[in-house]
Amino acid sequence: MTDAPIRFDLPHDQLPTAWLNIMPSIAQAGIQPLPPLHPGTHEPVTPDLLAPLFPEALILQEVSTDPWVDIPGEILDVYRLWRPSPLQRAVRLEKALQTTARIYYKYEGVSPAGSHKPNTAIAQAFYNKVAGTKRLATETGAGQWGSALAMASKFFGLDCQVFMVKASYEQKPYRRIFMETFGAEVVPSPSPTTQAGKAILEADPDSTGSLGIAISEAVEVAATSGGAIKYSLGSVLNHVLLHQTVIGLEAKAQMELTGDSPDVVIGCVGGGSNYAGLAYPFMADRLAGATPDLRFLATEPAACPTLTEGRFAYDFADTGQMGPLIPMYTLGHTFVPAPVHAGGLRYHGDSPSLSLLVKHGHMEAVAFSQNAVFDAAVQFAHTEGIVPAPESAHAVRGAIDEAIEARDAGEERVILFGLSGHGAFDMQAYDDYLNGRLPEVEYRQEDVTASMANVPDVPVPGEPTRA
Amino acid sequence: MTDAPIRFDLPHDQLPTAWLNIMPSIAQAGIQPLPPLHPGTHEPVTPDLLAPLFPEALILQEVSTDPWVDIPGEILDVYRLWRPSPLQRAVRLEKALQTTARIYYKYEGVSPAGSHKPNTAIAQAFYNKVAGTKRLATETGAGQWGSALAMASKFFGLDCQVFMVKASYEQKPYRRIFMETFGAEVVPSPSPTTQAGKAILEADPDSTGSLGIAISEAVEVAATSGGAIKYSLGSVLNHVLLHQTVIGLEAKAQMELTGDSPDVVIGCVGGGSNYAGLAYPFMADRLAGATPDLRFLATEPAACPTLTEGRFAYDFADTGQMGPLIPMYTLGHTFVPAPVHAGGLRYHGDSPSLSLLVKHGHMEAVAFSQNAVFDAAVQFAHTEGIVPAPESAHAVRGAIDEAIEARDAGEERVILFGLSGHGAFDMQAYDDYLNGRLPEVEYRQEDVTASMANVPDVPVPGEPTRA
Repeated sequence: MTDAPIRFDLPHDQLPTAWLNIMPSIAQAGIQPLPPLHPGTHEPVTPDLLAPLFPEALILQEVSTDPWVDIPGEILDVYRLWRPSPLQRAVRLEKALQTTARIYYKYEGVSPAGSHKPNTAIAQAFYNKVAGTKRLATETGAGQWGSALAMASKFFGLDCQVFMVKASYEQKPYRRIFMETFGAEVVPSPSPTTQAGKAILEADPDSTGSLGIAISEAVEVAATSGGAIKYSLGSVLNHVLLHQTVIGLEAKAQMELTGDSPDVVIGCVGGGSNYAGLAYPFMADRLAGATPDLRFLATEPAACPTLTEGRFAYDFADTGQMGPLIPMYTLGHTFVPAPVHAGGLRYHGDSPSLSLLVKHGHMEAVAFSQNAVFDAAVQFAHTEGIVPAPESAHAVRGAIDEAIEARDAGEERVILFGLSGHGAFDMQAYDDYLNGRLPEVEYRQEDVTASMANVPDVPVPGEPTRA
Repeated sequence: MTDAPIRFDLPHDQLPTAWLNIMPSIAQAGIQPLPPLHPGTHEPVTPDLLAPLFPEALILQEVSTDPWVDIPGEILDVYRLWRPSPLQRAVRLEKALQTTARIYYKYEGVSPAGSHKPNTAIAQAFYNKVAGTKRLATETGAGQWGSALAMASKFFGLDCQVFMVKASYEQKPYRRIFMETFGAEVVPSPSPTTQAGKAILEADPDSTGSLGIAISEAVEVAATSGGAIKYSLGSVLNHVLLHQTVIGLEAKAQMELTGDSPDVVIGCVGGGSNYAGLAYPFMADRLAGATPDLRFLATEPAACPTLTEGRFAYDFADTGQMGPLIPMYTLGHTFVPAPVHAGGLRYHGDSPSLSLLVKHGHMEAVAFSQNAVFDAAVQFAHTEGIVPAPESAHAVRGAIDEAIEARDAGEERVILFGLSGHGAFDMQAYDDYLNGRLPEVEYRQEDVTASMANVPDVPVPGEPTRA
């Protein structure tokens, strides 16, 4: 028997009762947050422009400068179904790596939907319910977000419509059925039910869709509903990241139980909500000057290397250019990443706050190709048992690399990473990997160059203007 | 916010350190356990006859009369990856049912393989490793057991071969891939690699297989290996049920945290290991006379109603008649249940100890048809979030029926049920249910009559002889 405990369960009654808003910490560190801009006027977006899409409570959270936002009891009641989530020490992985590092992981796959996504889906459904919304419209790619919002909508008695990227709809029937089990209407996108979908289908009847198209369809449904239908987004926006901080708040309390302090906090980044959720409670300490040596490492796919190869610019969050201009690292809103299995990370942009932190040197980023990611995922499964979601496996790769580096340097290093979900719905990816069918795809510079040419020419304060 | 806590986490350091053996309790209650018999001589099976299939430690557990068996530290180290598992109060389900009952469930779906099966897979792999076994052979139907043994084998450095019923192999590729991810060799059964498989294929080249055939193949591989390969079974046998009692031991300690005592303990029964695992620690109290009013309710599918419609008799555990004669409720070893989605419950027999407890009135049993089961599963998902495995959903149906009965009688009733696994690999079943494609299959009396005619004519002490 090992002497070291491996599970650090936070008592049920120590569930966080407020979310942490990173924005005041960013401002206090001397970093000026940049507002989203109206795509026509290039003036800062005012809250009323968001009112057709989101209930007021979420808009207020989006622009909040309060350091803490109380979590309503009705949301806590649902969180308690699976939260606090586990924080474990990966002693079996450490032993396999013969590392001098200590590796901890925060596991969000225990949620009924199998990922971190319900943390914000529950909150969004609740605030919509209170505001009188009858139905939510959203998009989903890999299916994690749609699954979470379907469940959350059922819990709060809302109808839910999910535009599912057609390629996923056809390849991942289990994800579709999961959503339908919770009563959601799942529509393959592009669909003939929206103007945005019709336009795509007229140009290309065989279109297999994209996240950008699906967003445009869901936004259109909400914007043209007269108020009864609202839109719901699973990442990128401030209020989404806010809700996810319950992960990191728990993890901080659990790290205290371990007696260790992390030297590096690692997570995978698509839109940024999973990693921000884990990282921001620790980042607040760094921004306040309390932990200047604490490192943050964002991991992303080499096929969609937004933080490592993108440019910090104002760009559209959606392909259809329906939303505001967002200040973020971007590969260009027309960039279409290669179809890697980590569908949740195939996003051309990133959350503005996370982008700012990378830009100002508070966060590092690294990109991995997918065979290296699945090597790590299988090593993790063979030692710790859990088969990671392909997205989460990027964080596993980052953690293993840090542990190997520590071993080779003869250093003790305390590594904390976020395991954002399980891979039970992603077994096809493992089959491809095990049978050598996983193509080693990276981005192509010419694609990024072409896509970047479509980024609007809007100056970013402190950034060089376009050549 | 509700006032009542809903999660009752057992502290990490209170993981049970010994398994509970129900056999001495059964004997002390005046019930004479019946030995398995040699199929040729009809004499009690001696341990040496089992030696080609199982390591000595497991054979000793199989015949043990000790009330407790210590859990080795190496097994505890693995259990700790996910144990103690959660016990939760289903307050949201209670509210939906408007019941006066309080419903608790013990959730085994948090294991990396998604069910209770690793509790014994880990133990069997460990004892085999210690005994020098190089490779394990087993069978799997729905895939839960094969998944658990694949993981356990990888953890202890054993090779693993799984004969997977061909129909499942083709319909459930995700289950196959899960096993392969842990390095197991998965063979569709019947296969041309064994004499048993060849014989079936010669008679019927298109055979889609059965659990009975797959057992015969795995047993043959072990029996003809000269000792390097052992066989591993996922239910029915005493040592398997013994390992699963970690579930009920935790649940007892957790029920003490709730301040409630169960009035009824419910679980689904295929071979019996899941339900015995939850029930036996409570049953020991009943057999000792301490809780004479505590009820036990076994749930099973109407398509395979072993406990409710079978006969208590000596019968073969496997279709191929390779194993000993087992004293149990049986529908006859040639009975082929209709292909209901709860593949893990499609077994003609039941564990001997559980059969004895039903026979002597310590345990009730009820059979449900599959639409009623999925009605309950979806109601559970809509309130508690977790999508149950089709097998586990039988226990949910039982619990909901008890809660409704309590409500209608105006009674407080404390219900504890076992949620043995999640349904992430079973979404096709939900699709069939949601779209009205789930056939309402029950057993046919003529099939049972025909099958029962093949049960050997071996007298059971205290039972009337065959007509």
